[in-house]
Amino acid sequence: MAKNIITISREFGSGGRSIGRMIAEKLGYKFYDSEIIDRVVAESGLSKDIVEKYDEYATHKRSFLYSIAINATTSGMDPYHGMSFANQVQIAQIKVINEIARDGNCVIIGRGADYILRDRDDVLNVFIYADMKHKAERVLSRYGANEKKIEDRIKDKDTKRKVFYRSFTMREWGVYSNYNLMLDSGVIGLERCADIVCDVARAD
Amino acid sequence: MAKNIITISREFGSGGRSIGRMIAEKLGYKFYDSEIIDRVVAESGLSKDIVEKYDEYATHKRSFLYSIAINATTSGMDPYHGMSFANQVQIAQIKVINEIARDGNCVIIGRGADYILRDRDDVLNVFIYADMKHKAERVLSRYGANEKKIEDRIKDKDTKRKVFYRSFTMREWGVYSNYNLMLDSGVIGLERCADIVCDVARAD
Repeated sequence: MAKNIITISREFGSGGRSIGRMIAEKLGYKFYDSEIIDRVVAESGLSKDIVEKYDEYATHKRSFLYSIAINATTSGMDPYHGMSFANQVQIAQIKVINEIARDGNCVIIGRGADYILRDRDDVLNVFIYADMKHKAERVLSRYGANEKKIEDRIKDKDTKRKVFYRSFTMREWGVYSNYNLMLDSGVIGLERCADIVCDVARAD
Repeated sequence: MAKNIITISREFGSGGRSIGRMIAEKLGYKFYDSEIIDRVVAESGLSKDIVEKYDEYATHKRSFLYSIAINATTSGMDPYHGMSFANQVQIAQIKVINEIARDGNCVIIGRGADYILRDRDDVLNVFIYADMKHKAERVLSRYGANEKKIEDRIKDKDTKRKVFYRSFTMREWGVYSNYNLMLDSGVIGLERCADIVCDVARAD
């Protein structure tokens, strides 16, 4: 069946976000990346600073689902009562991503959307990666150099994404069974990656 | 650059071998799977029984490269002297796969070819997988049922491939950094997987 929802997970510097934007343009789908932050702010009532701090990079001492279970037994009417900011952001994110998916025809970047939407059969889960040389060139040309070694900047960012994903989903980031396509954008090229995903998404 | 050599690694039951054959037909490339066995027999001087026994499923007490190093310091003129059958098969396989690659325009199934050819830049490394439902249907329709649970048959075969790959390459089978495309044939379909790979291989 055709896929109305495309989630993109990506290594930092792989161009996954740009590929996601191309896919949205080609298919006429809505594109959600930092757009999700504003909706989470509105949903959670937290400040934008707090939401941005915990967006995609939060770590937890215990699993998210465990926290939900604890919260359900100890809280009153307020669904966010007793939760850490990290978990308040995440529960709002789950709600927002489910709403976005309900509207359909969308591309969602990161934030464990592949996991949140795992019970739907109209979702195509994509992972974009590249070798270090390609990623370093891309990050340097887009964000410039700083005092930190470029390889370390890239590895640190991906480590944070891995930790976020694990604590949020209890699955491992980048493991193929979580995705339907994994594409090396360094070898394949960004435009062709986008075309491949569109082709698969359109198929009956 | 266009890719003259395509390696296909695959989960058992994912249709990776069939996809490889389709790619070879579409591109007019030679197809190598069990064909490699006859060439390894000729190269190594071992019997076909021995070569088949150690083809893709051999396990080793110590790493292959370590064995090569030991052999180099202890053997005389015969490159296979003092080696286990498993290692004799593997060293012949390395030689045969390098010869096949030298001729170009080929699709090679399994046998750590992605690792053996890692220093060439005209190789496209593909991994094919699928969910258990698709794999079970495919294995049952092709090979029929036996006394063993179908899920266990599939898992056992993939575990053997993982162990072979690790002992042969010191890398992890199925980890995305070893491949350029990883495709879920259950969702994408075999024919479309083949088309995607051909499209990428033909690109400049």
